[in-house]
Amino acid sequence: MELIAKINKLKAVVRKMRGAGNSIGFVPTMGALHDGHLMLVKKAREVADTVLVSVFVNPIQFGRGEDFEHYPRNLSHDVELLTRAGVDYVFAPAIEEFYPKDFDTYVEVERLSEPLCGKFRPGHFRGVATVVAKLFTIVEPDYAFFGQKDAQQAGVIRRMARDLKFPVDVRVCPIVREEDGLAMSSRNASLSPDERRAATVLYRSLCRAAALVLEGERQAGRVRQAVADMIQAEPLARLEYFEIVDTADFQPVAALQGGVLMALAVYIGKTRLIDNLLVDVP
Amino acid sequence: MELIAKINKLKAVVRKMRGAGNSIGFVPTMGALHDGHLMLVKKAREVADTVLVSVFVNPIQFGRGEDFEHYPRNLSHDVELLTRAGVDYVFAPAIEEFYPKDFDTYVEVERLSEPLCGKFRPGHFRGVATVVAKLFTIVEPDYAFFGQKDAQQAGVIRRMARDLKFPVDVRVCPIVREEDGLAMSSRNASLSPDERRAATVLYRSLCRAAALVLEGERQAGRVRQAVADMIQAEPLARLEYFEIVDTADFQPVAALQGGVLMALAVYIGKTRLIDNLLVDVP
Repeated sequence: MELIAKINKLKAVVRKMRGAGNSIGFVPTMGALHDGHLMLVKKAREVADTVLVSVFVNPIQFGRGEDFEHYPRNLSHDVELLTRAGVDYVFAPAIEEFYPKDFDTYVEVERLSEPLCGKFRPGHFRGVATVVAKLFTIVEPDYAFFGQKDAQQAGVIRRMARDLKFPVDVRVCPIVREEDGLAMSSRNASLSPDERRAATVLYRSLCRAAALVLEGERQAGRVRQAVADMIQAEPLARLEYFEIVDTADFQPVAALQGGVLMALAVYIGKTRLIDNLLVDVP
Repeated sequence: MELIAKINKLKAVVRKMRGAGNSIGFVPTMGALHDGHLMLVKKAREVADTVLVSVFVNPIQFGRGEDFEHYPRNLSHDVELLTRAGVDYVFAPAIEEFYPKDFDTYVEVERLSEPLCGKFRPGHFRGVATVVAKLFTIVEPDYAFFGQKDAQQAGVIRRMARDLKFPVDVRVCPIVREEDGLAMSSRNASLSPDERRAATVLYRSLCRAAALVLEGERQAGRVRQAVADMIQAEPLARLEYFEIVDTADFQPVAALQGGVLMALAVYIGKTRLIDNLLVDVP
């Protein structure tokens, strides 16, 4: 495993790989790695000759008052995990290397960025699309891997790659969960023991919502109310949103049919967590 | 010369070129070609193994009420000129091919897009940065050529390419002028004979401004006034702006020193023309 901090060094490595006809599988991360990330690495190893993981806490995807400063960082542990996972290259640039001081260019996926998390985190997906577009031009991956937990992010990136014609196969991998159903997230490390127990309410609510639909409920409004009630019953939790949306454009649907995405964001104490479930309405 | 309309066909050609180790010189145009464009082609031929010219009137860089519908188009004549000029590939996609109906991704270079033309054409440089970013990912050029007449456009594209790390050498070529000094532009074709004569006021004003500076004037305000007076004396002309700006960030300078860019936009009848001059203040 080789750890690379400079963009030009990475470009040289990429050029060599491509010259040798090696395909590149890319997993962009913000570090603080967990089994969800390692699943993405595993998928990358299955299809690509070379696996490259970036570790970069991207400042421009955090809003004012969000947790950029307190986002968990542990590069040496990440490098250890990635080495054991058989990764070939880890790209961990400094902020000033990635965003020189007169950096001025932003990539925005307009409509897909507006609903769900976009309503509560203005500029977030613009920061995500920008960092990933830049990473794609640097890394020139044949495959890139993202987690379904960030379903809207995955949709935004897939659309961005298609619209700008990046020659990359964007693959979205299923959510990896703890034993009690909590979706793996770097932010779970910020939870106190009590909060950690309370955090199971996200997945429990999603399961309850899916059960209602399987039992015959077809009105999104009633499902939303049931979820809101469940979250409210948990003293440490505060619901930011729960939406049932179209899987293609993330717009809310009123009457349930076909494939829908149930997505929610919940504050557990000061920690904001998200989760979602794809449901095929019978 | 091969004329290509489909993106995937072009990508296949590009892949073949790159596999063979051929460098690619790229000249993006909106067609209605003149000697300014042909100069860019000539420069491309001097440095690149393969020369590719795109002809695409980019709808998203035109604002409401601008001249998208009436922008001059003459693909068969353009193809003839480019064939004679020794171009290898002409890429002329249909609008629906380039922007599928749910296209949703835009590239914006923020600060550099604000002054000069950016003030009067909101969204223009966003349209330019988006089309060029997409063309860069499709064409993968080693060199790309732009005209100095669109000085701000060239600056925006150079910054975009640097910020997103496109591995392209952006080259800006000098303005090509008619015998009487009028900068070559596809829009000159829209001028009536009287307007064509009046249009020389752009270059005459720039020369007068430069002469004032060479004679010792160092206050931008006085130079601006002299140019405004000259434009006003031409009945068919209406000044949109004349600015003296820093060559790096396009911000207006008050006291003249070092290298400055003198740039103006003038309506001649209904036709909007731009021109500029780089001046090294003695």
